Amino acid sequence: MGGDHAPAEIVRGGVEYARMSGRKVLLVGQPEPIERVLADLDTSGLDLEIVPASQVIGFGEKITSVRSKRDSSIHVGARLVRDGKATAFVSAGHTGAVMAVSKVIYGLIPGVDRPALPAPLPRRTGGYTILLDAGANVDCRTEHLRQFAVMGSHYARRIFGVENPRVALLSIGEEDTKGNDTLREVARILRETSINFVGNVEGTHLFGDRADVVVCDGFVGNIALKVGEGIAEAIVGMIRDEVTKTFFRKVGAFFLRRAFGELKRRTDYAEYGGVPLLGLKKVSVVAHGRSRAKAIRNALRVGDAAARGRIAERIGADIEELHRAEERLVH
Amino acid sequence: MGGDHAPAEIVRGGVEYARMSGRKVLLVGQPEPIERVLADLDTSGLDLEIVPASQVIGFGEKITSVRSKRDSSIHVGARLVRDGKATAFVSAGHTGAVMAVSKVIYGLIPGVDRPALPAPLPRRTGGYTILLDAGANVDCRTEHLRQFAVMGSHYARRIFGVENPRVALLSIGEEDTKGNDTLREVARILRETSINFVGNVEGTHLFGDRADVVVCDGFVGNIALKVGEGIAEAIVGMIRDEVTKTFFRKVGAFFLRRAFGELKRRTDYAEYGGVPLLGLKKVSVVAHGRSRAKAIRNALRVGDAAARGRIAERIGADIEELHRAEERLVH
Repeated sequence: MGGDHAPAEIVRGGVEYARMSGRKVLLVGQPEPIERVLADLDTSGLDLEIVPASQVIGFGEKITSVRSKRDSSIHVGARLVRDGKATAFVSAGHTGAVMAVSKVIYGLIPGVDRPALPAPLPRRTGGYTILLDAGANVDCRTEHLRQFAVMGSHYARRIFGVENPRVALLSIGEEDTKGNDTLREVARILRETSINFVGNVEGTHLFGDRADVVVCDGFVGNIALKVGEGIAEAIVGMIRDEVTKTFFRKVGAFFLRRAFGELKRRTDYAEYGGVPLLGLKKVSVVAHGRSRAKAIRNALRVGDAAARGRIAERIGADIEELHRAEERLVH
Repeated sequence: MGGDHAPAEIVRGGVEYARMSGRKVLLVGQPEPIERVLADLDTSGLDLEIVPASQVIGFGEKITSVRSKRDSSIHVGARLVRDGKATAFVSAGHTGAVMAVSKVIYGLIPGVDRPALPAPLPRRTGGYTILLDAGANVDCRTEHLRQFAVMGSHYARRIFGVENPRVALLSIGEEDTKGNDTLREVARILRETSINFVGNVEGTHLFGDRADVVVCDGFVGNIALKVGEGIAEAIVGMIRDEVTKTFFRKVGAFFLRRAFGELKRRTDYAEYGGVPLLGLKKVSVVAHGRSRAKAIRNALRVGDAAARGRIAERIGADIEELHRAEERLVH
């Protein structure tokens, strides 16, 4: 029931994934609107089931009021995963609500203090750089950042297939002496673990090929993402302004339309679909609020891969190693 | 003597500004290389003077070693301003060195704790949004951010001619409740001053027309700028990659060359030249390390305008008002 195009596009994405994967897809929400969408689709031979949830959480709702809506589609979906009736939960709804509800229903991996939200950033050379935390945690201490490094590393490995992900800290200079006390402390401990820690990177390197995972606190991460979004829109807008100024430029723009189309595809969130919340015992995947069927289909694929890759168990093991390194350095 | 193209382009910029403005320009540095550049230029009727400085500070030097080079072009230039022999100092050299030396030689405006470095960001609709601090202060307390708001407001007014600059805080949501404790405290006090405080803006708004001045700490500011730079390069690079893939696209690109040229001009730092360090008793302007004559000429214009607009005195008066507001709210 979540997202700008719910339930139609969400249901369509679910149906498409059921067809592609041969997996069973549970559609959680108000049965009638879901049934109306299904009636228009070819669902023959697919394993689909509607699981009723009477409540809907709106985009504007506060987290405090969300918690009391215990029969929302988010609550019901997460409970299906907790109870072993589903392997992963996908939602294009209220991100904060998905996080809060998933955290309560699944619980955190032992040794993890806070869940993190990763963001894949498209690179010029192809592939993605994963930035985390992307906004879930505003004020972070050193132990949170270290845990993000472990979680991001497993995400890059299991979902994007990076063999030995290079992990870096987002800072204001590449030297270890740059940045602040928190970052220096994080670096010191990461060097003692099996994480492939490559040091500091700067904001300019996020869209290059310096690191596969870039760690920062949620405040900085959110600003970095929003600045990126803002400047991308501004540049594309400025190009459009300039391009349509004269007849000859319009001719040029005609020939370039496909190039711009491919650029858009390369930077489209629907390509990777959604991101799993990291640090929880089970899998919830957050899809963009503007998701259409393709994004949902890909988000379901991500959820499936995260569950099959046993991300939670693997993160748990590495968090233990991290804590041992912390103890060695402190004592 | 500072910058990638020193001394040739720096001297040329000085000569151009002397011609345009009719003002006297002092060229500070090693006399021989400066004289060699001047010999090739038409300087008839211009009021130019070489002021010798025997030492040069390199880009890689540490701030601690910089302080002992007391006859560097930065030291000599700042002393000329302190002693009333010049109204403003411009350098394309080591930014940290210009800041450190200017701070020691000029002193801070009473009530200002730290100087700030502003960064003008080009908007799609024309004009600039001023982001500060752009990297001078890594860890900031609430009082520093409030002072940046005052300083940025005067900079927008005197250098960019904005009548009643809208000042905002860079945060992760527009509501006052978003962000962190520091930002909430800053907002509470700014509302009590005569500053035209408009609340929080997000990273996406930096390149739009929501605010004229956007305040943040230097860590966040540096990351925002570097992310912007990185994504701009990535987008332009991706467009270039796509555009040159087929013959028809190359034809399109030919027609669009001028449009890209204009876009480049709109986002070129040489257009505004350089930025004054804010919070000091006298004027030092930092120009880009890659500055050529045009950027230096414009940086000299900025220095002149900052001195004539008596930015330091006006900041001083408003900092007093700020301290009175702080006291009212505390008591």
